[in-house]
Amino acid sequence: MIQTDKLYDEYTANMRKYMDVEASIAILSWDKEVHMPPDGNAFRTQQIATLSGIAHEIATSERFGEVLEQLDSDRAALNEEARKNIQLSRKDYERTAKFSHDFVMRRAVACSNAYHTWLKAREANDFSVFKEALEEVVKIKREEAEIVDYTGHAYDALLDEYEADFTAEMLDTLFADVKAKLVDFVREIRAKQQVDDSFLVQHFPKQAQWDYSIDILKKIGYNFKAGRQDWSPHPFTTTFSPQDVRVTTRVSEDNFTSLLWSSIHEGGHALYEQGLRHQAYGLPSGRYASLGIHESQSRLWENNVGRSLPFWKAQYTELQQHFPKQLAGVSVEQFYKGINKVESSFIRTESDELHYHFHVLIRYELEKALLEGNLQVADLEAAWNDKYKAYLDLEVQHPNQGILQDVHWSYGSIGYFPTYSLGSFYAAQFYHQATKDIAALETQITKGDSSKLLTWLQENIHQYGRLYSATELCERTTGEALNFDYFYQYAVQKYSDIYGL
Amino acid sequence: MIQTDKLYDEYTANMRKYMDVEASIAILSWDKEVHMPPDGNAFRTQQIATLSGIAHEIATSERFGEVLEQLDSDRAALNEEARKNIQLSRKDYERTAKFSHDFVMRRAVACSNAYHTWLKAREANDFSVFKEALEEVVKIKREEAEIVDYTGHAYDALLDEYEADFTAEMLDTLFADVKAKLVDFVREIRAKQQVDDSFLVQHFPKQAQWDYSIDILKKIGYNFKAGRQDWSPHPFTTTFSPQDVRVTTRVSEDNFTSLLWSSIHEGGHALYEQGLRHQAYGLPSGRYASLGIHESQSRLWENNVGRSLPFWKAQYTELQQHFPKQLAGVSVEQFYKGINKVESSFIRTESDELHYHFHVLIRYELEKALLEGNLQVADLEAAWNDKYKAYLDLEVQHPNQGILQDVHWSYGSIGYFPTYSLGSFYAAQFYHQATKDIAALETQITKGDSSKLLTWLQENIHQYGRLYSATELCERTTGEALNFDYFYQYAVQKYSDIYGL
Repeated sequence: MIQTDKLYDEYTANMRKYMDVEASIAILSWDKEVHMPPDGNAFRTQQIATLSGIAHEIATSERFGEVLEQLDSDRAALNEEARKNIQLSRKDYERTAKFSHDFVMRRAVACSNAYHTWLKAREANDFSVFKEALEEVVKIKREEAEIVDYTGHAYDALLDEYEADFTAEMLDTLFADVKAKLVDFVREIRAKQQVDDSFLVQHFPKQAQWDYSIDILKKIGYNFKAGRQDWSPHPFTTTFSPQDVRVTTRVSEDNFTSLLWSSIHEGGHALYEQGLRHQAYGLPSGRYASLGIHESQSRLWENNVGRSLPFWKAQYTELQQHFPKQLAGVSVEQFYKGINKVESSFIRTESDELHYHFHVLIRYELEKALLEGNLQVADLEAAWNDKYKAYLDLEVQHPNQGILQDVHWSYGSIGYFPTYSLGSFYAAQFYHQATKDIAALETQITKGDSSKLLTWLQENIHQYGRLYSATELCERTTGEALNFDYFYQYAVQKYSDIYGL
Repeated sequence: MIQTDKLYDEYTANMRKYMDVEASIAILSWDKEVHMPPDGNAFRTQQIATLSGIAHEIATSERFGEVLEQLDSDRAALNEEARKNIQLSRKDYERTAKFSHDFVMRRAVACSNAYHTWLKAREANDFSVFKEALEEVVKIKREEAEIVDYTGHAYDALLDEYEADFTAEMLDTLFADVKAKLVDFVREIRAKQQVDDSFLVQHFPKQAQWDYSIDILKKIGYNFKAGRQDWSPHPFTTTFSPQDVRVTTRVSEDNFTSLLWSSIHEGGHALYEQGLRHQAYGLPSGRYASLGIHESQSRLWENNVGRSLPFWKAQYTELQQHFPKQLAGVSVEQFYKGINKVESSFIRTESDELHYHFHVLIRYELEKALLEGNLQVADLEAAWNDKYKAYLDLEVQHPNQGILQDVHWSYGSIGYFPTYSLGSFYAAQFYHQATKDIAALETQITKGDSSKLLTWLQENIHQYGRLYSATELCERTTGEALNFDYFYQYAVQKYSDIYGL
């Protein structure tokens, strides 16, 4: 028993050491995006690579493997949380230890190279610049899938890292449902008269937008004593510890929505990270459950709260005070309709809540085909453009508007996109449950108080970290596994109202 | 031969890995001072400690010791730079490897604890709060000196880390000379009518001061593509690589000099770091020669350039444009005299160029007595106050104005202060040589061009890193070892002119 306690302490120390190095990588990367002077790039890239190598050593040391194995066989002597931590860490260890140092380095080089090439391709607005580097990434991700091994589809081996409860087969079923329901629904909306959102495209001064975004982060409960917001070209959330969770945002002075949605979205991610238990730092019980669950937290605040009429009934007067000239003649109902305009568009991150899932679906289908070998990178741009025509009725004019728009593949993040849709669907299901569990939730939100919702999320989701898987969390919280109907019902109700269906 | 090359590559790789981790620590520490939200402190402290432990492991691994030993015995096969690198790294290895992991951790805990206690003591303005923690630091630094070992004074063992060419005996001789010459000279100045510097104490708006400090950094040659300036409570320079060297500054809206001198001073440090050879990153040949040499670079820009009449003849019109109201009736000569006012004062960092060395001397004498055991921490405050009376004719009124003013001892930096004086003296000697080597240097500076001076410093000092020791650099550059007379002559000429002696 005492021996087990000592071993568990050794396990904890190694996990925290690993997390300290991972957090350091996050700090170096945050600084790289937010503050680093231009010439600093080469050495910084090397420093991040060195820390990554060290983290890999810590995570895969032989001794650590023995500790995990011993603790797993002594699991009867562990409490429930400890037992779960060991089980999850063993799974992680087994996955990570499969990768040789050589493979990890080759993958790092392929991705780093692809990222830089992607930047160049973006600059040239030319997919052919990126093609070869992307081929390397696809090759190495296929190799990764083989190393990890799988029973069903190669995609499962990659998806497992991001969303362990799902397989390609399950996603196929889910997306078939999404298609069946959303294609027709969007068609119905298109037949109706379009709402007006022209007031969003005016001059909104940078500083006033920034001030407003700080206000709104405070309002949703983001703790600035344990975080901060900065500018960056691509908004992101990053965690150095549950007591230092940072968000970034970007601004377009001609369009208010860019900053607004990125701040609330990243704020939602950050609330999750700030809600993880401090004592569990470094352990599975102190980490997020899955990317889909993470995304559910950002989407819930961005969409279910941030694009709702109750929310703006509370916030709109203050928003008008920040932008008196710009929003003078716009009523809260007009504003609400405008921010919920449904319209087919090229860029995923600027999409409305419905078309969004076609963007994801396209990427998912292409990724699968690439992994299967049924699609070559050489034919990827054409395939992309065909699908944008088929699903979104759009003719892609140039690659920056199409195949080159997302950074993910260049990072080697293949198998990642579906978690964005899962996030929206989980969000709808959680929010539906919250309105049942919290008396008069929407009335509170109409009064500007979302604190009970945050508490509900902390109690049902955040505090558990990875102790429950995505599906377990969903079942415990809502009584059933992920069910697309919650999103669909939410969408039907919301857009029927807005578009008068 | 090929075997030696391979070993040297292994050596280089380990040194770079070590430097990558050290740079990461610097980034985490910079962020801690500059950006970190308040609640982030506990985890950040732990993350820095973890990286420090990893760095120590890299620097002291058995294999690395073997590599160094082998390369040292094969030194005939190495080129001169490589030979020097190995020699210095072996010295570092031997020093560092003497410390057990247990000792390193105990020292880290003692210093971390002392730093936090010092902050509390500052807040309470009460030395007794700090006393016990400082006793621990003194104890562990005495232990450190014993571990390192020494032949002369215990002080030598600590000084060796900062200024390897000096010993306590040499410092005693030097400071005796300083006392003999400066005490009388300062007395002469005091007998004269005081210059007016009241115009420096007015309202100078923060943003205007910031803008001016950016201008002045650019003017002395600081490269903003390889660095940036931020605010912090205590100004410092930090190096993440020779291509990312950052400075911080602070502002007092009631006093222009706080920002001005800290920006130029830190800028001088940064020019040195930006001038180190990129290819030598991580190696002794890519690191600064000694703390005294580092300080010589900041002091040269701050004092020999930044407090000179030629410099302000070039810069003053622009300064007046930044602060038209504040400096309207002040001539450049008045400004020059005001910024060079000589006056006994309590705070080292706000001291004039002459009294400064009494502040250092006091700390040096106290440190030595503490290490000898001739002074107990319990009696330190009284001893401090006595010395301020004796050397500076000041009655310390409260500890924040006296014994609690400097952070250094709480960090465990005992043996460090003398390098500040050495820096001033080296600066005077280098600057004297520069005026001989560069035709019409002061005329160029009067025209606003200090670029030849920077080139001279890069060629004579920066590019060599640690390849030459402080004394070797000084001899190569000026033809002799450090000679206090250069500083003394500089001071006599400058202040005789200002005070009409």
